[in-house]
Amino acid sequence: MDKVVNSLREAIRLCGLEDGMTISFHHCLRGGDAVSVQIAEAIRSLGIRDLTVAPSSLTSGNDGLEDYIRDGTFTRFQTSGFSPALGRLLQSGGIRQVCELRTHGGRPAALKRGDIRIDVAFVAASTADRNGNCNGIGGHSAFGAMGYSLTDVRYARKVIVITDELSPYAVAPVSIGQEQVDYVVPVETIGDPAGIATGAMRPDRSPLNRRIAELTAKAIICSGHLREGAAMQTGSGKISLSVAGQIERYMMDRQISGDFAMGGITAILVRMRKEGLLRTLYDTQSFDQTAIRSLAEDPAHCEVSAEAYASPLAKGGPIVDGLDFVILGATEIDVDFNVNVITNSNNQVISGAGGHGDTAEGAKMTVITAPLFRGKYPVIVDRVTTLTTPGRFVDVFVCQEGIAVNTAVQKNRELADRLRDAGLPVLDIHDLQRRAERYTGKLPPLKPGGRTVGLVYWRDGTVLDEIKMNDEL
Amino acid sequence: MDKVVNSLREAIRLCGLEDGMTISFHHCLRGGDAVSVQIAEAIRSLGIRDLTVAPSSLTSGNDGLEDYIRDGTFTRFQTSGFSPALGRLLQSGGIRQVCELRTHGGRPAALKRGDIRIDVAFVAASTADRNGNCNGIGGHSAFGAMGYSLTDVRYARKVIVITDELSPYAVAPVSIGQEQVDYVVPVETIGDPAGIATGAMRPDRSPLNRRIAELTAKAIICSGHLREGAAMQTGSGKISLSVAGQIERYMMDRQISGDFAMGGITAILVRMRKEGLLRTLYDTQSFDQTAIRSLAEDPAHCEVSAEAYASPLAKGGPIVDGLDFVILGATEIDVDFNVNVITNSNNQVISGAGGHGDTAEGAKMTVITAPLFRGKYPVIVDRVTTLTTPGRFVDVFVCQEGIAVNTAVQKNRELADRLRDAGLPVLDIHDLQRRAERYTGKLPPLKPGGRTVGLVYWRDGTVLDEIKMNDEL
Repeated sequence: MDKVVNSLREAIRLCGLEDGMTISFHHCLRGGDAVSVQIAEAIRSLGIRDLTVAPSSLTSGNDGLEDYIRDGTFTRFQTSGFSPALGRLLQSGGIRQVCELRTHGGRPAALKRGDIRIDVAFVAASTADRNGNCNGIGGHSAFGAMGYSLTDVRYARKVIVITDELSPYAVAPVSIGQEQVDYVVPVETIGDPAGIATGAMRPDRSPLNRRIAELTAKAIICSGHLREGAAMQTGSGKISLSVAGQIERYMMDRQISGDFAMGGITAILVRMRKEGLLRTLYDTQSFDQTAIRSLAEDPAHCEVSAEAYASPLAKGGPIVDGLDFVILGATEIDVDFNVNVITNSNNQVISGAGGHGDTAEGAKMTVITAPLFRGKYPVIVDRVTTLTTPGRFVDVFVCQEGIAVNTAVQKNRELADRLRDAGLPVLDIHDLQRRAERYTGKLPPLKPGGRTVGLVYWRDGTVLDEIKMNDEL
Repeated sequence: MDKVVNSLREAIRLCGLEDGMTISFHHCLRGGDAVSVQIAEAIRSLGIRDLTVAPSSLTSGNDGLEDYIRDGTFTRFQTSGFSPALGRLLQSGGIRQVCELRTHGGRPAALKRGDIRIDVAFVAASTADRNGNCNGIGGHSAFGAMGYSLTDVRYARKVIVITDELSPYAVAPVSIGQEQVDYVVPVETIGDPAGIATGAMRPDRSPLNRRIAELTAKAIICSGHLREGAAMQTGSGKISLSVAGQIERYMMDRQISGDFAMGGITAILVRMRKEGLLRTLYDTQSFDQTAIRSLAEDPAHCEVSAEAYASPLAKGGPIVDGLDFVILGATEIDVDFNVNVITNSNNQVISGAGGHGDTAEGAKMTVITAPLFRGKYPVIVDRVTTLTTPGRFVDVFVCQEGIAVNTAVQKNRELADRLRDAGLPVLDIHDLQRRAERYTGKLPPLKPGGRTVGLVYWRDGTVLDEIKMNDEL
């Protein structure tokens, strides 16, 4: 029953990986990931080419894949998004086939429909035993929840667990059980968990962000959604973390306790849980060391699969459908409240769809927060460069100058009145757009892109938008 | 997202259950089960008939189903076994179609192959939330692990969770996640967990059983399988529990610690875990209140699916394949070491295949323990009445008069020498048979049975034996 194979190369050979097949891995180690390049190197050394890579997402930790894309080892990606470096490669035509971008919930739905078919799933685990039982909370490289891989192993033909802490004893608790694992490969390192809290997850206390956070918290409080038993996703962006702090204080003052918080779990949610303000944390991916420790220690901090979290094909609907409110970011929002989180206004792919569309569709109240402009770019535009989340799922946009309510959605008319009655600065989104343009001027129209290099899928499997080559890159 | 439906009847209607379909439920509440009859009543009230019932097993807690079998609501069973009362019904021709008996590992394999197709799985849970997240460790009817249902929900078309403690808040930890649940039905009671430790699970200290237990422990110790890092299933029969106590003392004296124990988990295994003698407990079904509490409190006490536990189609083999030794019972064993645990020597179905065959095939050393005779019946017979576990998977038989080693299996010849060298009473099984017959006489040949009412499947999906009608019933 021993499944230990001493090299990735050998495990891949045993799985029968061939040219043109599909592999997957998770991105839970984020900027600290050291697994994807080891996988790529082993595959290349076997002379296997033309693979589709279907990871949960791509971050800076995966930038080393560039070499293996350029030489044709990897020729297509099915992913939530790209790191800026891999985005540049995509849009300069460096990836041979058209890539597919899906939300975190769209991905398990695509797996269920068979639109993505994983031949070999690679699962980085911070500890595993010789039979393949593993988790992300034990070992010296603990990174927390492995929610994406929980889904992968359900659908993949073969599963290889990669660990830098092979336990001679049965691993417990079991996140992925041995019945779903074919091989276990010990490696020197799966990565540096210190790289997890990079980029998006660092809090920030600038006056601008504080102002937006304050308005956001007020809008949520006035909406009535922050009630006893509320369910929330507060997000991990700079503004989101600050809003969470204000929600925490409000709940504490009023002695309100929420039902659950979900998503990438952060230290502030763990603190709220310890303070009795949240009963349950649903975690697909732990966003900092505090969250990782909490997942290991707190039975009410639950690791959940991406499928449970966000798949529209989860029975009765995924956990996101129970959200009272979610706080999300945007690179752009347009006057119809459509949101872009994949590209910037220069049509450069810089991030991914993540759980944005899933939570936006699921939550009763979806709040988009962003500054009015970033440098010379207004955030509010006539039409988003890349449609990530359709405006019909967005209720409120908050920036430093006020709150725009999407009253094209019937239920939001009362919300707008309520916020206005509470004395909050409710403005038409066109007004906010004009204010932004006072600082930035109107954006010149984008140079038409080149050929299509990526397709952005909505969670129901339909195509929302296309990503074009960017000749400036 | 609220999945609560106020009656079983309504939930069944919503699932589209129709004549001729298949339902399932688990038997973890054993003698205390109050769910199966409520399901039956709801189904009958809807006028649905001719159903196949595919529970994990049938115990005395399911005896109330008799009415619903007689009236044609249920006309076929796919199960591990029958309670004595339902066995009588089967063998008196009271079940209209031929039934199928499979081991606990054979069942998930049959689900995977499509030999069993569950239309609606009913999952009794001691607590569930309104979205369907549930477990068996919360609530006032906590019964412990729900390992069988973990497998059912993976394969069933529709899933109904039945609970007598509906939580207004998110349930944690999550044994079965909401993404796998269609409806949640609150009921007055799912049963009485005090009924769990009935029958097989009560320890016993008779001198006869102590003698057998002593010889068994000595045989295991001499075999060399009780080493540092050993994996074991000690069972829940009277003799097994006593053997476990001796193993505990030996391990403590020698400061040996085992890797894992598995199967139905009992208080003695929990104690060994607390004493540091076992690193992990793998639990498909908790056999007493101590085990139930431990599952809730000890992170190294892991709930595992029947598939992980015993399915021959689990990737790389199920957990049973890692066993160093298993202690099992028998109603009969024959001179070729074939074992019967389904019927008695009067050809009366009294129990089920359980995990007998799975662990026997998986373990390095399979020990069958039983008294030499029971009342007027010898335990050793020329040919078992019903073949449950083929002799090639049985290594040793222990009774009060000595130890028979199955030397037809090559590897056991050295074992026989080793036991003999240690001064243990190693005897030929034919000798033991003759000794038994000195007390009981030779059994008269069984009256030929009537038509076939049941088929006993081996875990690979082939038919091992048939169960015939018994005219004496």
